[in-house]
Amino acid sequence: MAEQRVVIVGFGNVGRGLVKTLLFKSSKLAKHGVNIVVVGVVDSKGMVYKPEGLRPVELLKMLETPRSGLRSLEVAKQYVDLKELYEKTKPDIHVELTPANYETGEPGLSNIRFALNEGAHVATANKSPLVFDFKGLTELARSRGLVLKYTATVMGASSFLSLLDHMKLQDVYSVRGILNTTSNIVLSLAHEKLVEVERAVEEAIVLGIAERDPSIDIDGYDAAAKLTIISNVIGKPVDFKSIERVSLRGLSLREVVMAIKEGKAWKQVSSIDYRSQKARVALEKVEPGDLLYHVRGAMNGVVIETDTGSYFFMGKGGGGVETAHTVANDILAIALREV
Amino acid sequence: MAEQRVVIVGFGNVGRGLVKTLLFKSSKLAKHGVNIVVVGVVDSKGMVYKPEGLRPVELLKMLETPRSGLRSLEVAKQYVDLKELYEKTKPDIHVELTPANYETGEPGLSNIRFALNEGAHVATANKSPLVFDFKGLTELARSRGLVLKYTATVMGASSFLSLLDHMKLQDVYSVRGILNTTSNIVLSLAHEKLVEVERAVEEAIVLGIAERDPSIDIDGYDAAAKLTIISNVIGKPVDFKSIERVSLRGLSLREVVMAIKEGKAWKQVSSIDYRSQKARVALEKVEPGDLLYHVRGAMNGVVIETDTGSYFFMGKGGGGVETAHTVANDILAIALREV
Repeated sequence: MAEQRVVIVGFGNVGRGLVKTLLFKSSKLAKHGVNIVVVGVVDSKGMVYKPEGLRPVELLKMLETPRSGLRSLEVAKQYVDLKELYEKTKPDIHVELTPANYETGEPGLSNIRFALNEGAHVATANKSPLVFDFKGLTELARSRGLVLKYTATVMGASSFLSLLDHMKLQDVYSVRGILNTTSNIVLSLAHEKLVEVERAVEEAIVLGIAERDPSIDIDGYDAAAKLTIISNVIGKPVDFKSIERVSLRGLSLREVVMAIKEGKAWKQVSSIDYRSQKARVALEKVEPGDLLYHVRGAMNGVVIETDTGSYFFMGKGGGGVETAHTVANDILAIALREV
Repeated sequence: MAEQRVVIVGFGNVGRGLVKTLLFKSSKLAKHGVNIVVVGVVDSKGMVYKPEGLRPVELLKMLETPRSGLRSLEVAKQYVDLKELYEKTKPDIHVELTPANYETGEPGLSNIRFALNEGAHVATANKSPLVFDFKGLTELARSRGLVLKYTATVMGASSFLSLLDHMKLQDVYSVRGILNTTSNIVLSLAHEKLVEVERAVEEAIVLGIAERDPSIDIDGYDAAAKLTIISNVIGKPVDFKSIERVSLRGLSLREVVMAIKEGKAWKQVSSIDYRSQKARVALEKVEPGDLLYHVRGAMNGVVIETDTGSYFFMGKGGGGVETAHTVANDILAIALREV
């Protein structure tokens, strides 16, 4: 049984989902000859580590702490210090689950660089470090013979990026998709309940679907970040800042009603067209003949046009435990490489 | 630039497509730091090899030979002898593109075993060796530290299996798909032209879409083979022989007309349901609410139900050059591992 020592940095929905997934799916991991030992868990205000590995009961206790509340545990450090964490636990794999930050990429960017420089493989669900320095991070990993996996950064609950990553020899003409779950739910609400988008956003906040500050989703930053990562995987990078973004906020009730009358639906469509060299996150009125019309609510969907034909993939966009499965699959893929 | 020496065994549509793909996409390969050198090409009656690598002009000349006609070239051997080929060329990667054989798995089965025993990585588009001995072949590869890739065996023109392979930690409840292109085209023809299936089959043979002996496709062997491979990738193998198969041949014009009147369509649906422990290739009358209804003509599509939600993927099923891209992507993936 190959033992892999893991530190989890970031302990929100996905971090908690990951701890559950690793516990509940340990027999599946064992079937593949892999034993994942969590040696440290870090949130924004504290950390818990144990060189010999945290026991299931200790991990379950962490799940009961509130957000950013690890330090309420007796065993916790009241500060975050990755250097100390690494010196004490010597992890094989670093899991980066800090929140995305489209101003600076931090703290994810520095954390991932630190991990790679310390010789740890990395699995990240945080998009922003890749948006800021995809090339630098992937080259740093490669130069050190390490693996940097980020499958959960696009269509988090699915392995879509594994599919795309295997298509290296295709000429990709365009990618067009619904990549942001919150926006798609908000627009679905607006159409179903016949309310204007501003109202649908408020409802989504109340339902806990949208963040209290929904700008990252509603104004297209999250989708643009995903487009940036997709373009890098394709091998024809697009700069995040150059991606045109249109906010959902401008959409009026009149426009929603008009679309319904025409049998169409408004969608936040993210696209890169390599023929016209355009990348954008736009509001598009799509018709039923368009595959993206059928991507509703919590689903994400992508159409890829290439010189070997077109491909369509649809799956749930996110969710804590679902996205955690994708991160765990990345961890397993790294571990299997090491076996 | 990492040089990888490749032998291509089997020189039909996919083999020829592969030679074209490697020639036309050599700059893409170079961008990834990989140089693929074809050192040998084998068909059923002869072989051509050159330890220093076949030049583009020599490869292009091979493309002009008829099926099983390599031996018509002056430089060709008038026999097939893998031992001689390996001794002379020392390949890094063996590409197995011989035809599927559901009686014995041969010659693919022996060829792949031979290659792995000689220390070559393997990329195969031939399904039947995996159907006969998935476990043995994957274990043989692993025990020797070699890679066995077979992405092109299911939905050949796409990287679907890469997606599925990354979902190791999901609990898969069921897989349901349209996996055989010929059957799907035949059924699409029957619906569009209002002819009985027997007639549509004849037309597909004339159009070169169906084989002269269409049994492998029409009677469900090909789809059952793909289900077997899918089930092995999922980690819950189903025995090929235990898969229920229903032939398309029985479908009458009356039944086709009835389906159209009901707004439905007949499809060859391949499915594994792990809850009921049933695997079958059946004729199903599907309705527009079913995603598989929309998988028409040359397209393939699969719905995967798991404990993290359901996923749908659709793409072209086959085609010589398209499938060759998937094989070439496997070759590149192997080469990148070696870099």
